[in-house]
Amino acid sequence: MPLLDAIRAVVGDRGLLTDPADTAAYTEDWRRLYRGRTPAVIRPASTGELAQVVRLCAEARAPIVPQGGNTSMVGGATPADNGEQFVLSTARLTRVRDIDPLDLTMTIEAGVTLKAAQNAAAEAGCLLPLSISSEGSANIGGVLAVNAGGNNTVRYGNARDLTLGLEVVLPDGTVWNGLRRLRKDNTGYCLRQLFVGSEGTLGIITAAVLKLVPRPREVAVAFCALPSVEAALDLFGRFQSHDPAAISAFELMSGLGTEFVLRQIEGATLPLAAPAPFYTLVELATPRPDAGLRAALEAVLEGALADGIVTDAAIAESEAQHAAIWRLREEHSEAQKREGASVKNDVSVPVSKVPEFIRRATAACETLMPGIRAVPFGHMGDGNIHFNLEQPVDADATWFLAQDHAIMDAVNEVVRALDGSFSAEHGIGRLKPYMMPDWRGGAELAVMQRIKAALDPLGIMNPGKVLP
Amino acid sequence: MPLLDAIRAVVGDRGLLTDPADTAAYTEDWRRLYRGRTPAVIRPASTGELAQVVRLCAEARAPIVPQGGNTSMVGGATPADNGEQFVLSTARLTRVRDIDPLDLTMTIEAGVTLKAAQNAAAEAGCLLPLSISSEGSANIGGVLAVNAGGNNTVRYGNARDLTLGLEVVLPDGTVWNGLRRLRKDNTGYCLRQLFVGSEGTLGIITAAVLKLVPRPREVAVAFCALPSVEAALDLFGRFQSHDPAAISAFELMSGLGTEFVLRQIEGATLPLAAPAPFYTLVELATPRPDAGLRAALEAVLEGALADGIVTDAAIAESEAQHAAIWRLREEHSEAQKREGASVKNDVSVPVSKVPEFIRRATAACETLMPGIRAVPFGHMGDGNIHFNLEQPVDADATWFLAQDHAIMDAVNEVVRALDGSFSAEHGIGRLKPYMMPDWRGGAELAVMQRIKAALDPLGIMNPGKVLP
Repeated sequence: MPLLDAIRAVVGDRGLLTDPADTAAYTEDWRRLYRGRTPAVIRPASTGELAQVVRLCAEARAPIVPQGGNTSMVGGATPADNGEQFVLSTARLTRVRDIDPLDLTMTIEAGVTLKAAQNAAAEAGCLLPLSISSEGSANIGGVLAVNAGGNNTVRYGNARDLTLGLEVVLPDGTVWNGLRRLRKDNTGYCLRQLFVGSEGTLGIITAAVLKLVPRPREVAVAFCALPSVEAALDLFGRFQSHDPAAISAFELMSGLGTEFVLRQIEGATLPLAAPAPFYTLVELATPRPDAGLRAALEAVLEGALADGIVTDAAIAESEAQHAAIWRLREEHSEAQKREGASVKNDVSVPVSKVPEFIRRATAACETLMPGIRAVPFGHMGDGNIHFNLEQPVDADATWFLAQDHAIMDAVNEVVRALDGSFSAEHGIGRLKPYMMPDWRGGAELAVMQRIKAALDPLGIMNPGKVLP
Repeated sequence: MPLLDAIRAVVGDRGLLTDPADTAAYTEDWRRLYRGRTPAVIRPASTGELAQVVRLCAEARAPIVPQGGNTSMVGGATPADNGEQFVLSTARLTRVRDIDPLDLTMTIEAGVTLKAAQNAAAEAGCLLPLSISSEGSANIGGVLAVNAGGNNTVRYGNARDLTLGLEVVLPDGTVWNGLRRLRKDNTGYCLRQLFVGSEGTLGIITAAVLKLVPRPREVAVAFCALPSVEAALDLFGRFQSHDPAAISAFELMSGLGTEFVLRQIEGATLPLAAPAPFYTLVELATPRPDAGLRAALEAVLEGALADGIVTDAAIAESEAQHAAIWRLREEHSEAQKREGASVKNDVSVPVSKVPEFIRRATAACETLMPGIRAVPFGHMGDGNIHFNLEQPVDADATWFLAQDHAIMDAVNEVVRALDGSFSAEHGIGRLKPYMMPDWRGGAELAVMQRIKAALDPLGIMNPGKVLP
């Protein structure tokens, strides 16, 4: 195959995997929703090599699937089954090119894991304020390509909001060097925000300039019991009007989901006297040395206790307690898995509509399937709820999972009625393009398709993803 | 003219101005850099009317210049001299459609002035954290079209960072309703960020969802004397590492520029014992009721005084003193005007390079023209310096202004060497498209031109602006 030979001449033997035993890890997504086939996995060692590979592929009209840490929740980095799509991995672009603690910027290559990027920032006395469950494996390139969200969005925004500059290899193999680290730069169309969130369908992000913040000096965490989801919204409003810049996380958990964690996860304990219908994890953080965060947390909680908004609360007194409280939230997915089969919905609504969403979506699912168990949890401060549905007790898992589309449709009908989104932070990938015409059809999808055709006229960049 | 009749049938007599006496105010920019001609100024009363007008223009291939408050610094809303371009004003789209203090969002039409939008937010107990000199006249549509910056960018970002959703009339007259008020929504390409900053060349913004923040309960302002611009950067770093979320403004002024203000502006007084080479205005603000901002401000300043970073400082003790301090900064442009002719540069560099930029650019201009007086001022916290040059004392103003390109080139050469931008917050408009190939040429400009051709294939949206 002359194309493979030409690619090998660029990346060398070390940069090219063709043996199915070697490529297998790259052709299946980690959720095991998709297994594709590929003629080769290409692993360039530099932006220059990567650009040459893309140029060769463009000349041969060979389709490319960009891949970082292969942690997509929606099959965004998995090749198709037809065996024609090359996997182009950014995993060897692992340099931290620059960190400036005064500018509070980091210039970093696409193949650095999010965890390694966080560590590099910490070594410079800064915080990279982006945290997601898969951060140990997820790469910066993928994190930006999908505009990852996570636990700290309520304070610092999504990956998009942290992006000052990009280096991108375009679908014809030219390199756009937009690695500017400027806070103000009004010089034409904002291309970086077009590539962030485009899931590799418009080009391949090879490096980025990210915003950092000073490392917090004080952090305070509380685990609160609440009588209702309406009370959780009320509590969020109280913290927000007190000081939105102090809230680094505001997470919601249901009574049932937390019960699953306490039952399924070894060592998990409820730091309160009795169970409750809902719980919130509230984390405040600041770099100020004298901020009195603990006092602020207590003051807001005391008011909420007095008003019956919160029925009980525990504030972490040690690192160990801090970790234990976070564990109750982080083990939700694992505990649900152990309880049986579940159907996942990564949706968002305006923050003020979260209670109405949870009530209506729960009722809709229970009407559809008596005995189904709603276990909503997630980023209440962003209106981003992981509205997961657990199978009825004693139901057959296979039968239950076969109803997944009906369940997702029931949830999405409520999301749509409340002006929400069917994909809050996971993106579209290979899983949800079929939903785009219904949700983003008309003028919006037409503009997206025109942009795709303008930037990738051959249609070789991540075909079959995002757009239907 | 059949097109005019068709437009009149949509907008009525009230929505159409054709008499040159009526259109004159729309065909000249406020800086008086450009005077154009137009067959008509069209003032639709709704998004629906505006969309119909655009459709009619597209069918007739008639070029359109969108205009809001006509406050562009770069001639971005002025029609060409050929008399063919229709001015399409959004000034009658003045509804505040919705404010949600819990979501902290405002849905607002393009023709609302920034000041009126700020007031509407304040009435709901919130702050729209965007402030620019022209806010009394500038419209939301224009503010977004140019991605305005201003005094509070250091804390809240540019207009782009406050935009959650948009309604846009596309160049073919279809309406994209993207007025979502979601904090997380990863469903395809981020179109809103493409339209923000595109200066009306890709479509017309008719409404937007903007982020709000809770209104500050405590504000503290200091005016500081510093021995050097390096000391100003040091001081900024100290406030930033103390608490970046407390800094609502960090403005730089030169000794000479401040001397101009004290000499030219009635009632302006220096709140310090003696003049200094540089000054900074530091404003801290927070919604926290018990934040101790004043104590924090004093603590950082005491450390800076002890280290010789700051030589003197005054903290405002009253609303009147607060206003007097801000006035020293805000009257810089007016004072420079009264001192004689000046050449303006709206540039940015990485924050850490501001001192080097000011030293090198000052030296370059003084080499070019002995006696020229550099009066840099502006948003040091964003690296955005208005590097203005005042004519030599006793020089002829006309002769001086004729050297404007040589002066701008000398400044821009330093900006470029420091990886900065030739247009930080004012945009490109009609003034700077000629600079685009040199600064943003190659892959970047090519992608912009492809996007322009894809979205506006007839080239009718604000021709001659942004792209060369």
